Amino acid sequence: DDKLFLISGPCVIEEESTMMRTAEKIKEVTEKLDIPVIYKSSFQKDNRSSVDYYMGPGMDEGLRILEKIKKEFGFPLLTDIHYPDQAKPAADVVDVLQIPAYLCMQTTLVVEAAKTGKTVNLKHGQFLAPENMAKPTAKIESTGNKNIILTERGYTFGYNDLVIDPRSFYDMGKIGYPVVFDITHAIRKYGIPSSDPSGGARQYLPVLGRAGVAAGVDGIFVETHPCPSDALCDAASQLDMDQLEEFLKPLIELHEVELKYRK
Amino acid sequence: DDKLFLISGPCVIEEESTMMRTAEKIKEVTEKLDIPVIYKSSFQKDNRSSVDYYMGPGMDEGLRILEKIKKEFGFPLLTDIHYPDQAKPAADVVDVLQIPAYLCMQTTLVVEAAKTGKTVNLKHGQFLAPENMAKPTAKIESTGNKNIILTERGYTFGYNDLVIDPRSFYDMGKIGYPVVFDITHAIRKYGIPSSDPSGGARQYLPVLGRAGVAAGVDGIFVETHPCPSDALCDAASQLDMDQLEEFLKPLIELHEVELKYRK
Amino acid sequence: DDKLFLISGPCVIEEESTMMRTAEKIKEVTEKLDIPVIYKSSFQKDNRSSVDYYMGPGMDEGLRILEKIKKEFGFPLLTDIHYPDQAKPAADVVDVLQIPAYLCMQTTLVVEAAKTGKTVNLKHGQFLAPENMAKPTAKIESTGNKNIILTERGYTFGYNDLVIDPRSFYDMGKIGYPVVFDITHAIRKYGIPSSDPSGGARQYLPVLGRAGVAAGVDGIFVETHPCPSDALCDAASQLDMDQLEEFLKPLIELHEVELKYRK
Amino acid sequence: DDKLFLISGPCVIEEESTMMRTAEKIKEVTEKLDIPVIYKSSFQKDNRSSVDYYMGPGMDEGLRILEKIKKEFGFPLLTDIHYPDQAKPAADVVDVLQIPAYLCMQTTLVVEAAKTGKTVNLKHGQFLAPENMAKPTAKIESTGNKNIILTERGYTFGYNDLVIDPRSFYDMGKIGYPVVFDITHAIRKYGIPSSDPSGGARQYLPVLGRAGVAAGVDGIFVETHPCPSDALCDAASQLDMDQLEEFLKPLIELHEVELKYRK
Repeated sequence: DDKLFLISGPCVIEEESTMMRTAEKIKEVTEKLDIPVIYKSSFQKDNRSSVDYYMGPGMDEGLRILEKIKKEFGFPLLTDIHYPDQAKPAADVVDVLQIPAYLCMQTTLVVEAAKTGKTVNLKHGQFLAPENMAKPTAKIESTGNKNIILTERGYTFGYNDLVIDPRSFYDMGKIGYPVVFDITHAIRKYGIPSSDPSGGARQYLPVLGRAGVAAGVDGIFVETHPCPSDALCDAASQLDMDQLEEFLKPLIELHEVELKYRK
Repeated sequence: DDKLFLISGPCVIEEESTMMRTAEKIKEVTEKLDIPVIYKSSFQKDNRSSVDYYMGPGMDEGLRILEKIKKEFGFPLLTDIHYPDQAKPAADVVDVLQIPAYLCMQTTLVVEAAKTGKTVNLKHGQFLAPENMAKPTAKIESTGNKNIILTERGYTFGYNDLVIDPRSFYDMGKIGYPVVFDITHAIRKYGIPSSDPSGGARQYLPVLGRAGVAAGVDGIFVETHPCPSDALCDAASQLDMDQLEEFLKPLIELHEVELKYRK
Repeated sequence: DDKLFLISGPCVIEEESTMMRTAEKIKEVTEKLDIPVIYKSSFQKDNRSSVDYYMGPGMDEGLRILEKIKKEFGFPLLTDIHYPDQAKPAADVVDVLQIPAYLCMQTTLVVEAAKTGKTVNLKHGQFLAPENMAKPTAKIESTGNKNIILTERGYTFGYNDLVIDPRSFYDMGKIGYPVVFDITHAIRKYGIPSSDPSGGARQYLPVLGRAGVAAGVDGIFVETHPCPSDALCDAASQLDMDQLEEFLKPLIELHEVELKYRK
Repeated sequence: DDKLFLISGPCVIEEESTMMRTAEKIKEVTEKLDIPVIYKSSFQKDNRSSVDYYMGPGMDEGLRILEKIKKEFGFPLLTDIHYPDQAKPAADVVDVLQIPAYLCMQTTLVVEAAKTGKTVNLKHGQFLAPENMAKPTAKIESTGNKNIILTERGYTFGYNDLVIDPRSFYDMGKIGYPVVFDITHAIRKYGIPSSDPSGGARQYLPVLGRAGVAAGVDGIFVETHPCPSDALCDAASQLDMDQLEEFLKPLIELHEVELKYRK
């Protein structure tokens, strides 16, 4: 299918009602816009800045909620894992196992995810030249698994800043798998807690999204929440779910133009 | 006018016949695509890597050739100046005075250009945060001249590399003047002479152009030449003029989508 | 003690004889120069670029060899762990548990290491502003463990390059624990396999080492090997053990001057 | 002479009495520490952020004051030029013509400075890989002038930040001329006016100075002022002249150690 697909959901799994409301909205918007969607949320954010921050409900409870969403809404599911022993249990529930950007070079983790046979979404390490994403990709391929997605989310640019380099989409595309652009993480300002509104430069969401899609991607990744300012993680960067439809429209049209001219 | 405008021509003024052939092609393409165009070329490249490299024919001969092109093709003209005393004579011939990126902070140069009343195209310094382009802009405004264009051409990213940051188009747009994207200079690999084909990463021209236009610009800047490999400057980065039309088509369509959604 | 201390050893645990020869040399050099030393080697490099590269002998065999070295030479030991369940077994043998740079933000890993009560050496993530190393440090402190070392090893600078920013030593020193400079990893050229000699810019070892020590550190980290070109990991960057003494001499003298003027 | 030499003085030429007081202090300190010194100040800062900021007294008045200082204190003099026609008049008074960092690639400017036969101090462009400083150096050599100094002052690192890369001293040293480290400009925070105290990160002056000297330089460049907070330019970064002696002491000792081990 040539349609721009969407990976979306709240950053971390919160209360069931919040998860359901978000799913409902995502369902409504993606049906209206007629694009495929994968529901995303994390059961355990293991790389938060403080042990005092909310990390999620844990694997068992998190997977239970995700399973319920799948049953109710029919979405394919994506979640991220931080440790090798999470690969199998997560794969029993979700369709896409995501490797966090910081962990993209961890051989055991990547290989265990690959061995489940599920699609592996490799996030692009903020410290890795885009073309070098071929290396963790080859680790997945070494298991015989060719269900791979590569996701851009920004590259280190001085201190506490990330840059989205359009060349990255080209270089990652050359590796030979679908490329996704994670737009909401690209605006995080590190060094500022995500609960502080200045921890995310939301004014850049449209311009980054449009640039990335026109650079050539197959899907986009947008974390969304019924009320971002109350979100338990990435409050400063998630998109208000009520803005999702308007946010997606130009991206879908730009994708159509880009695809027409893609070689 | 809401059409994407084009600034184009050979990097440096070469033989008259080369300049004429390029002008003819640019005329043909821009008429066919129905977009406005400004013809660009430099009479003196004062920042080449070696005194042995071709710098151009000098101001007098250069301006004579540009004037002839204007007469024959009816193009508005753009050229860059490196020293304050070049502002007035150049302004007698051209419509847009361009300030080179390295020189964007030179007060006397910028002010002398502004005083001519001509449009000033300020190139974005590779070392200046995009929002800080407001500073040289204010120097121009201080003379009463509000005819200003701001041109992105890449920001320093490690050694010998430039990055195009889509946020730059947003930040420069906020300053309040038309924003142009100089695509061909964005692919130069510094440290490698431009006569060496590896001195320009041409594979990135489409992806950068598309990303920049979708990020929101009013015009684009593309150096073009009848035979780039023989060009006397920037041989590795100029676009072959026979590829200009195909290069522009997706950019024009992406611009139309972007403009529809621009607030 | 105010003496510059050394963390040294082969990058990854190789054959026992290689490990012993290196230990012998390190013992000889550090006794002659009269500086404290911690013997370092990894039992499992989980972040190598390919599954085909040597990862080490694994935890059990690796720890056995390290224990033998400790018994024979009396060195305190350091090794790195990549997964939480390695913390306890490793802590039974070594004195310092090292958290790899990419993994410095992984809460569970850092906390499990901290809970052993052993000294934790936190490598500075190549993507983290130096002052933000206070955050994983606080995760260690949250367990009551205050035995912490912070190690600089370079920050992302464009693609495939790391920069050593002298300000980093200042910022990390402000956090309040001993600061170490890992000199040999700072010269790795990513994107080039470490088995290729161009994968490490060895010419910079002295200048980086001297700059870092004068910037103010308490210890240095230098991977060394009897024959780096035959090393099974980081062949391009490890220091030949026969050069260790000459390499250390200026660093020790610079440290003495720096310490005299440190506030 | 193997002594670390000092280039020092107020950033821009202010009132004569201020210039004299600074000269007196510099004389006192450098005689006490027994190091060679060149007095530095600018007659026209042509790259300030606003036309409303003080640019200096202009060339004629500026050179008059510098000449007076030379007569009274016997210092060799350094000043920077921004335009080619300033080379000759400035060379009639000063011993070293400095090319500002932004202008290091301007051929005419560099060549005109070189033709005076005076020593040319080329500041390292914030956008130029250190090894590429060989290119403007060759422009000077093309005139037969071999009196060259190369000065590091920081390289672009994300937005509004500069990094001092110790490798830069090595690479610039390989070009074959004395290398100087401009420490006070390395701490400027661009985007913040220099009249705002947060426009300079003074806490890093010692750590940067020590790292740079240990990396291997022949001289250092420190802008100093009787009362930096009242300085008419770079108020946030100049060193209080009363701190100069204490600032220099460790640098001189580190230089002695470095020189002993320099090949």
